[in-house]
Amino acid sequence: MLLQLDFTIETPIYRQIHDQIVLGIASGKLSVGEKLPTVRALAIETGVNVMTVNKAYQFLKSEGHISTDRRGGTVIAGGKSVTTADKVLGELRLPAASAKLSGMSSDEWLDICIKAYKCEEENNNDAT
Amino acid sequence: MLLQLDFTIETPIYRQIHDQIVLGIASGKLSVGEKLPTVRALAIETGVNVMTVNKAYQFLKSEGHISTDRRGGTVIAGGKSVTTADKVLGELRLPAASAKLSGMSSDEWLDICIKAYKCEEENNNDAT
Repeated sequence: MLLQLDFTIETPIYRQIHDQIVLGIASGKLSVGEKLPTVRALAIETGVNVMTVNKAYQFLKSEGHISTDRRGGTVIAGGKSVTTADKVLGELRLPAASAKLSGMSSDEWLDICIKAYKCEEENNNDAT
Repeated sequence: MLLQLDFTIETPIYRQIHDQIVLGIASGKLSVGEKLPTVRALAIETGVNVMTVNKAYQFLKSEGHISTDRRGGTVIAGGKSVTTADKVLGELRLPAASAKLSGMSSDEWLDICIKAYKCEEENNNDAT
């Protein structure tokens, strides 16, 4: 698994690990059932603290993206992850406000929204 | 100006100040030309460091949301802020991936996107 961590930006490292794994699953680069490195192995591979990787894995687990069992290790979970419409709406409020203040019409905004959803879908199709 | 800062969450304080002012402008709670408190006054009002408020103001200024002159102080800027479609798309990638992985269809995703844009618009209409 190739993670690209940027130590110069504000986004916490555990969050970067989390985000890239979520995007990897959505784009089909990571498949359901695929095994992830152990916390220790990923910490060594990326040069970050074990606690940081552990925090990312716990976060992913709490959202249902990954699961761990003692025999199989950590794998990409097949079940639906737990995200609510309200949570997504909360995440969209600021981008929507920025888009609007930059003069984007609702149609232009929706074009970008479709693109964001489709980008993932296209990658998904490429992978299958 | 009433800012609600949460010192227990991960989002940096300067970012919370920035985000709430952007949402305030988009929702019409803050009008173009409206005067903002000085950096020092807002720091005292919110109980945060002057440097933190200054960072938020610099960020807002770099995006074109506010402007400062020596006589008028800091005001909400009338010009369009600078946000590109690419930047917005980048901000939507993770919410779109989360929505998709939670099983939302593209139609459900777009409903939320419309809601995010309209929420602001409705507030705007209320204020005028």
